[in-house]
Amino acid sequence: MAVSFKEIYRDKSSGARTGELSTPHGMVKTPIFMPVGTQATIKAMTPQEVHQVGGRLVLSNTYHLYLRPGQDIVAEAGGLHGFMNWQGPILTDSGGFQVFSLGPLRKIDEDGVMFRSHIDGSEHYFSPEKSIEIQEALGADIIMAFDECAPYPCTHEYARQAVDRTTRWAGRCLAAKTRPDQALFGIIQGGEYRDLREKSTAELLAMNFPGYAIGGLSVGEPKDIMYRVLDYTIPLIPADKPRYLMGVGSPDCLLEGVARGVDMFDCVLPTRIARNGTVFVSSGKLVVRNAEFARDFRPLEDGCQCYTCQNYSRAYIRHLIKADEILGVRLTTIHNLHFILNLMKNIRKAIEQNEFIQFKDDFLSRYHFK
Amino acid sequence: MAVSFKEIYRDKSSGARTGELSTPHGMVKTPIFMPVGTQATIKAMTPQEVHQVGGRLVLSNTYHLYLRPGQDIVAEAGGLHGFMNWQGPILTDSGGFQVFSLGPLRKIDEDGVMFRSHIDGSEHYFSPEKSIEIQEALGADIIMAFDECAPYPCTHEYARQAVDRTTRWAGRCLAAKTRPDQALFGIIQGGEYRDLREKSTAELLAMNFPGYAIGGLSVGEPKDIMYRVLDYTIPLIPADKPRYLMGVGSPDCLLEGVARGVDMFDCVLPTRIARNGTVFVSSGKLVVRNAEFARDFRPLEDGCQCYTCQNYSRAYIRHLIKADEILGVRLTTIHNLHFILNLMKNIRKAIEQNEFIQFKDDFLSRYHFK
Repeated sequence: MAVSFKEIYRDKSSGARTGELSTPHGMVKTPIFMPVGTQATIKAMTPQEVHQVGGRLVLSNTYHLYLRPGQDIVAEAGGLHGFMNWQGPILTDSGGFQVFSLGPLRKIDEDGVMFRSHIDGSEHYFSPEKSIEIQEALGADIIMAFDECAPYPCTHEYARQAVDRTTRWAGRCLAAKTRPDQALFGIIQGGEYRDLREKSTAELLAMNFPGYAIGGLSVGEPKDIMYRVLDYTIPLIPADKPRYLMGVGSPDCLLEGVARGVDMFDCVLPTRIARNGTVFVSSGKLVVRNAEFARDFRPLEDGCQCYTCQNYSRAYIRHLIKADEILGVRLTTIHNLHFILNLMKNIRKAIEQNEFIQFKDDFLSRYHFK
Repeated sequence: MAVSFKEIYRDKSSGARTGELSTPHGMVKTPIFMPVGTQATIKAMTPQEVHQVGGRLVLSNTYHLYLRPGQDIVAEAGGLHGFMNWQGPILTDSGGFQVFSLGPLRKIDEDGVMFRSHIDGSEHYFSPEKSIEIQEALGADIIMAFDECAPYPCTHEYARQAVDRTTRWAGRCLAAKTRPDQALFGIIQGGEYRDLREKSTAELLAMNFPGYAIGGLSVGEPKDIMYRVLDYTIPLIPADKPRYLMGVGSPDCLLEGVARGVDMFDCVLPTRIARNGTVFVSSGKLVVRNAEFARDFRPLEDGCQCYTCQNYSRAYIRHLIKADEILGVRLTTIHNLHFILNLMKNIRKAIEQNEFIQFKDDFLSRYHFK
């Protein structure tokens, strides 16, 4: 088995749990947040820096790497691990979410999806088989089934058709898969409809994937809908399978996801807002590019142990961001990834000390949303 | 004395020499190349990385820091050292070169220069006194006199007037200076005219600066003109004063400058070409963004000890540069600064082993210019 999962500790008063996810490139502790390296690099970071801020499992995007540099070049470099110099485990998505997000630039049929490159407008076709072929060339430890991610909102009928197609395509992905050293995860769809989530889960469980993602969330729906879907979907997944909530990375959603039994998360949020000059602090978000910080010589957050906060002031970081200096983006990215990965570390600790609900309530009482 | 210089070893068959330049923030060995941190950051690098690639003395720009964030903010942060978190010595230029380079955006009179900001078009005025006031607020170890840098080509009459003004302004800079912990260097002008270089040097020597820069070179003139000016100017400067050739950083010019007795250099070239995807290798320049490197899995240079070459391939770096990823620029910048700073280290070693001319000839016989 390329990847195996073991539940270690289950919280007494919520669905939260810790676990160990073993992969060909090492074991990682869950719940885990996966920094996103869309183009085979976590933006602005070296792999060593990603590891230093606590990153252990990173995600990369099949759609982007297929278009540039092409999966054949990555394969020649020894796969993604060799190409990007990351020694730990890697997960690639299937490209499904990206091509479905292209809107008018894509056309779906039963076999797959025709789409146009966002880089040069050239025409391409992804099918379940093609997605697996690319992901096998990229060589991640965990690869994802090619699914149809329905938008929000969508009708029950549309969502049902997407579930049916996702099930058929999941079967084709399983059949196409050849590498024994990679684990293929299924993706549960069904939008906001409980009967469809149950149907999708049952159909995918029948195929016995080594892990399950919950897809089609964090696509614009209110958070309470996301939480409700998790409430009734996650208990359907056997405890010995890891559960991955795709595209989620804000601190409140991480805590609520963990409380409902999610083991894995990924999101571009921490790195993306960093590049706009916004950072996470325990009281919420701080827009360090704002004028109010021009003469603020405190660190982004007092007591923070990250490299940025140990060495630089808000005033300096604001100057760098305003002056379009790369170091500014590096420093905010380091801080934000450290913040999220440190949160996950504290979550794991709280679970194993039976203090998770207290920890979550404390965190959320301090954290103000804007 | 804020800064002192000691000649350590003089080459037997050229003007090359090694020396020690002592500053309030430590001693550095010469000949030295100073990485440029225009906006209080060496572009794409942390201070630790600059030190790791061999940077010991860095330059920052008065014009840019005056406009953004403003010298008062830097002063409040404890000066440039505190603001940018650089513990070693720093040199600031006077802003003269930048405002004279603004062309139609500036107007010169005897008192100083009116100019418009390249950021927002606002009107500003630099005089010798203003330049010193700003540089004292920035707090570098070495500050530069506010001079008039004549363009190339220019008439003898124009160059003479610029020398006269540079001498008068140098006197005003000396009179305006108040901080005993900073050393003020004079700047020799005179364009390509020997009599004017001799006049400028004599007038500035009479003021007994602790160091002398040769300005007005590397402004578009052929290299043989630059070398000739150095040939007859440098011998006029007493051996106990450091000699700084401003704005020069290509490997051949560094070697030729050292051969003529230059102790200090600065240039944006290594970091600027890095951001365009061009790197130095022992055979010349390599444009790693070119298509020919798409499947080249060798390091930028075999045997290079820099972080980039120890960990990444040309193919990966090309991918990052093509995909506009920050890590690409980081990796090329690290390599280029390492290349130049390692060259300076080898130059110092060669001088002290009496092998400088051999080293220079060997290097230049391998290095092909384009």
